[in-house]
Amino acid sequence: MRIAMVAPPWFELPPCAYGGIEAMCADLVDRLVARGHEVVLVGVGRNGTAAREFFATSDVPSADHLGQGLPELVHALALLDILSGMDVDVVHDHSMAGPLLARGRDVPTVVTAHGPVTGQMGRYYRGLGDSVQMVAISHAQRAAAADLNWVGTAHNAVAVERFPFRRDKEDFALFLGRVSPDKGIPQAVAAAAAAGIPLRIAAKCREPEEHEYFHDVVEPLLGGDVEWLGEVAGATKLDLLGAARCLLFPIQWDEPFGMVMVEAMACGTPVVALRRGSVQEVVTSGETGFTCDDHDGLVAALRRVGELSPDRCRAEAERRFDVRAMVTRYEQVYQAVTAAPTLSSRAV
Amino acid sequence: MRIAMVAPPWFELPPCAYGGIEAMCADLVDRLVARGHEVVLVGVGRNGTAAREFFATSDVPSADHLGQGLPELVHALALLDILSGMDVDVVHDHSMAGPLLARGRDVPTVVTAHGPVTGQMGRYYRGLGDSVQMVAISHAQRAAAADLNWVGTAHNAVAVERFPFRRDKEDFALFLGRVSPDKGIPQAVAAAAAAGIPLRIAAKCREPEEHEYFHDVVEPLLGGDVEWLGEVAGATKLDLLGAARCLLFPIQWDEPFGMVMVEAMACGTPVVALRRGSVQEVVTSGETGFTCDDHDGLVAALRRVGELSPDRCRAEAERRFDVRAMVTRYEQVYQAVTAAPTLSSRAV
Repeated sequence: MRIAMVAPPWFELPPCAYGGIEAMCADLVDRLVARGHEVVLVGVGRNGTAAREFFATSDVPSADHLGQGLPELVHALALLDILSGMDVDVVHDHSMAGPLLARGRDVPTVVTAHGPVTGQMGRYYRGLGDSVQMVAISHAQRAAAADLNWVGTAHNAVAVERFPFRRDKEDFALFLGRVSPDKGIPQAVAAAAAAGIPLRIAAKCREPEEHEYFHDVVEPLLGGDVEWLGEVAGATKLDLLGAARCLLFPIQWDEPFGMVMVEAMACGTPVVALRRGSVQEVVTSGETGFTCDDHDGLVAALRRVGELSPDRCRAEAERRFDVRAMVTRYEQVYQAVTAAPTLSSRAV
Repeated sequence: MRIAMVAPPWFELPPCAYGGIEAMCADLVDRLVARGHEVVLVGVGRNGTAAREFFATSDVPSADHLGQGLPELVHALALLDILSGMDVDVVHDHSMAGPLLARGRDVPTVVTAHGPVTGQMGRYYRGLGDSVQMVAISHAQRAAAADLNWVGTAHNAVAVERFPFRRDKEDFALFLGRVSPDKGIPQAVAAAAAAGIPLRIAAKCREPEEHEYFHDVVEPLLGGDVEWLGEVAGATKLDLLGAARCLLFPIQWDEPFGMVMVEAMACGTPVVALRRGSVQEVVTSGETGFTCDDHDGLVAALRRVGELSPDRCRAEAERRFDVRAMVTRYEQVYQAVTAAPTLSSRAV
């Protein structure tokens, strides 16, 4: 199959540090090529993937303008030119403005919803109507806007072999995320304290609102059995994930997909989480962690989490959340949308 | 004529405070209606203009997300639905993402370039190709990207009668703008000091980079004959503009159009400016101000500016920069693009 893969305009593929969507795109491209598909990659800067054909809509990634409107619009317009007359079976678009121009295209356009599908994003996806075929990153996400033009669900994934498996755990729970009320740091501190287990907090704290929340809420909670590590990445992050008794994930919003849960499981580390968003479909309670309703549930789970098997966590990550599983799902999606002519393609 | 006027998604029309583009749109709509045209306004929130038909793409203006991508995309998609099957002669689009969807429309789309046309904005407008008919807000702007699909130039304008004319001036020069290196506050201070004329600085200082520049560069220059007024608006701003011996405008970049020059002239106040961007086509040197090459030129001009006639400034503002002149130009543009079928409409 011949696939045009459209990355966002913010970072090169693969990304050096930030860029979750770009990392997912790069994994997807590399595995699709390894399976014999032809991938035409549309991105920015240079191509670090296995795609043999690459078109940059800009020489320079727009990371400094992340979230602004103009780079997306320039990217979308350039994409229109690049795709014009190009012979592909399907377009898979991960950018924001690109799908605006899918209408009338004579091949189907697959769009992965990488973030929330409610509020203004929901209005946007709804407005795209049947000009695109939507893929959800979790069933929870899909349920939150069931009327969108969904064609399938493909959980996000990691290359599990890149995560070191560790069976012998140390005596601490790990919080890994951002300094944000959405992520539940105070809830993690309270649960760990009640269960009598030390807590290490590794969290990004860069934006002004993150600093403010750190100063007002997080900092007063530190000390004693609560250790602040700041932002971690690379080997330090992997070491922490592997060493922890469990990942403590008291999420406070309906996150469409929590990648850190999968990363923990890949290291053989179970997840103790509140039951929000995609938590239930990622963690099998009593097997790869515990999904809880409230503080008391978290405390009880922290006391029991040593009973769970690191091997089971790793195996589940490999089976359900490895990039191979994700790529297989996307292959099925591409097959489905190219087999049946869509309303969008008939309308041309 | 029946015109669909597309405002940006950030503020209601007319805007309460900020929103230069929205203010221009509101003036344009009101005068077009007064001249017997039918205007269908597409905007956000409520309609405060004379347009009898109004479609909101959102109940709530997106001011809090100014410059971000998503509100523009939602606005553009909603616009597509609103225009579908609507009977209009021309679409005049002031939004950013809206023009992306002009391709294939069966009536012409006029786009006013409200900001820079170089760099990434230039790439965007260039990418739109002949799917839109571009209007420049100055000849200088047009010259900076002469290859775009320009159909005309229409200087921005003010309702001159709303600006109080004042013949007797006080002994100070006025700087009115933002706290930014682009605007030349140190150059204004140096020129006023050398000419021996007091300077009053009224400038917006809200963003972090504005505060930083204020602290590092502007604050040390204050005191003595240099008075800091902070941000001014409404009657205070009009009083200052009318009372000043001249507006001192040592602009440091090629601004596509400097509205404050027109506001000063409307109050009968001449403009002493550096010759950049649109300055020469707004100010007639020796008549409504002086356009200068450098510091020495500014100093000499400040010494002579009392010779110029406030009546002449006001008359020139009325003749060339009143909303009536702007609306007449846009009527001509609408006539031109609807008279000749465009490439874009033929291609449908």
